[in-house]
Amino acid sequence: MKTGKSIDVARRASPAGTGPITVSTLAEAEYFASHGVTDILYAVGIEPGKLDHVIDLRRRGVDLAVITDSVEGARTVAARGAGIPVLIEIDSDGHRAGVKPGSPLLIVIARALAPGAVLRGVMTHAGESYNCTSTAAITAMAEQERRAVVVSADALRAAGVDCPVVSVGSTPTAHFAARLDGVTEVRAGVFAFMDLTMAGLGVCTTGDIAISVLVSVIGHQREKGWILTDGGWMALSRDRGRAPGAPDVGYGVVCDEAGTPIGDLVMHAANQEHGMISSRGGAAIDFARFPLGRRLRVLPNHACATAAQHAEYVLVNAGALDGQRWPRINGW
Amino acid sequence: MKTGKSIDVARRASPAGTGPITVSTLAEAEYFASHGVTDILYAVGIEPGKLDHVIDLRRRGVDLAVITDSVEGARTVAARGAGIPVLIEIDSDGHRAGVKPGSPLLIVIARALAPGAVLRGVMTHAGESYNCTSTAAITAMAEQERRAVVVSADALRAAGVDCPVVSVGSTPTAHFAARLDGVTEVRAGVFAFMDLTMAGLGVCTTGDIAISVLVSVIGHQREKGWILTDGGWMALSRDRGRAPGAPDVGYGVVCDEAGTPIGDLVMHAANQEHGMISSRGGAAIDFARFPLGRRLRVLPNHACATAAQHAEYVLVNAGALDGQRWPRINGW
Repeated sequence: MKTGKSIDVARRASPAGTGPITVSTLAEAEYFASHGVTDILYAVGIEPGKLDHVIDLRRRGVDLAVITDSVEGARTVAARGAGIPVLIEIDSDGHRAGVKPGSPLLIVIARALAPGAVLRGVMTHAGESYNCTSTAAITAMAEQERRAVVVSADALRAAGVDCPVVSVGSTPTAHFAARLDGVTEVRAGVFAFMDLTMAGLGVCTTGDIAISVLVSVIGHQREKGWILTDGGWMALSRDRGRAPGAPDVGYGVVCDEAGTPIGDLVMHAANQEHGMISSRGGAAIDFARFPLGRRLRVLPNHACATAAQHAEYVLVNAGALDGQRWPRINGW
Repeated sequence: MKTGKSIDVARRASPAGTGPITVSTLAEAEYFASHGVTDILYAVGIEPGKLDHVIDLRRRGVDLAVITDSVEGARTVAARGAGIPVLIEIDSDGHRAGVKPGSPLLIVIARALAPGAVLRGVMTHAGESYNCTSTAAITAMAEQERRAVVVSADALRAAGVDCPVVSVGSTPTAHFAARLDGVTEVRAGVFAFMDLTMAGLGVCTTGDIAISVLVSVIGHQREKGWILTDGGWMALSRDRGRAPGAPDVGYGVVCDEAGTPIGDLVMHAANQEHGMISSRGGAAIDFARFPLGRRLRVLPNHACATAAQHAEYVLVNAGALDGQRWPRINGW
């Protein structure tokens, strides 16, 4: 739920309303708990300064689990004696945190958790899938991700340690996994909205992208072939990420108000509150079509980053605002 | 005030409390007006959809001025007949919007404003000063910026048009202008906090930077020489901008909790809620100094972008939290 950060989005992904969900901050855990979600994984390595909050949420009836990848982390959680469920983070791709798959360290960490905390399982996030250059490569990465946690769960079980949850997750691998044998849980984030990076990876089409930023034309630089709008990087975020080999569309693809891309218009540059739009191929712009005040939509590179620049979603149905607004949260 | 977006910051820059200030959104204008600021320039090209809000703020006693760089824009404002003060935006550096300095178009725009709107003056923003490679180049850019508006004001006055305000502004040029003859107003934004980009330009030192992000150590990848923290790009922003020729410090320079840089540690990479820290020169990390939970501070590349990821400022005095919190606003 780290992409939407909205109970309205969560209810569409998980209609029961109680979870399970994964969050990226304890502020998200608090928010979703206040809306009745009771099964939550906080999937960023736990540190001592957050344990009071974790314990408090658990006392209020939330089955909140945390993760660690070290003996130091396990001991820190165990020392509280609060029975906090812990998943061991596995490094399936060298991307950020985690224990090497099947490492003997897994057993040491599991033993350091007892008796004050409870091992709930193993988890990983194949963030490197964002750098794959084909859907076949994503399928291979999904298998690498799956094997990383299954091998780790097997190592724990072979040592007599219970390991009920075997959790993987990234939006690309979730869509292209050929098999999930041994996996009990798949966590994906950006799938809720999709974005240009996912389209560039072949995970979705541009037409699947369910989030855009509404901007207004504020000027023209005719000699340069630029349309200026009031949507800059503050509205789109500074995220310039894109799939490997995908065309550079700057800060996003420019659409009409109904969400249909206009020629090859892109937002090629941005200041804080200015977006500069031009034809990617250098085609002439018919400026008469873009008077001051015309509304345009910009599809973002990265839904998580763009959504986080806003306090709510304004809903569109069949190309028009439908009057609904869904609040979201930000912060920590 | 587009950097701080906080009345507490504004009061330190402008103790009278009533302005003048410049804002980048009408939400900022609304916020500062609600705190008693009465002299406000909205320095992003006006479009028809915002005029109701502008007129409403003016009816409530705020001397809110807007900007335009076209006859179309001038006619749009004039058509409301509300006497809205308008500054003509001048393009001093090819950076984004504006009329060419001294262009005959200035007179046409000025005449299109009458009688429904009022020409208040000319303004520009030398955004290209961020790309200067020496302080001498910034001084030259400041003179280019000054000349752009003075030449434009002269052209208007020669045509018999009153042009009381002659406004320039960017933090680098504001600090290195050799002369301001003919200028009546200087607008700068990021100066309130400064950041690594300004330090890289020679506008300030790293020790002058008054904003940082507090993060906690959440793990280690010892083989790679990485410290992991819970401050990722959501907390720092995705802004990777830096001054030309300045070293690449990733997402920022890493300091101890009191704000002193630690060796050559930088936040070299980021995920949404993960920051990866390492030595820029590849020096060995003494991991014992970075246990789980240790607090670190990260100085940002771009104060405007980083501050916007947060809902408030938590004040530090003499290296320690002093208990004060200053709220800020985001959004539009």
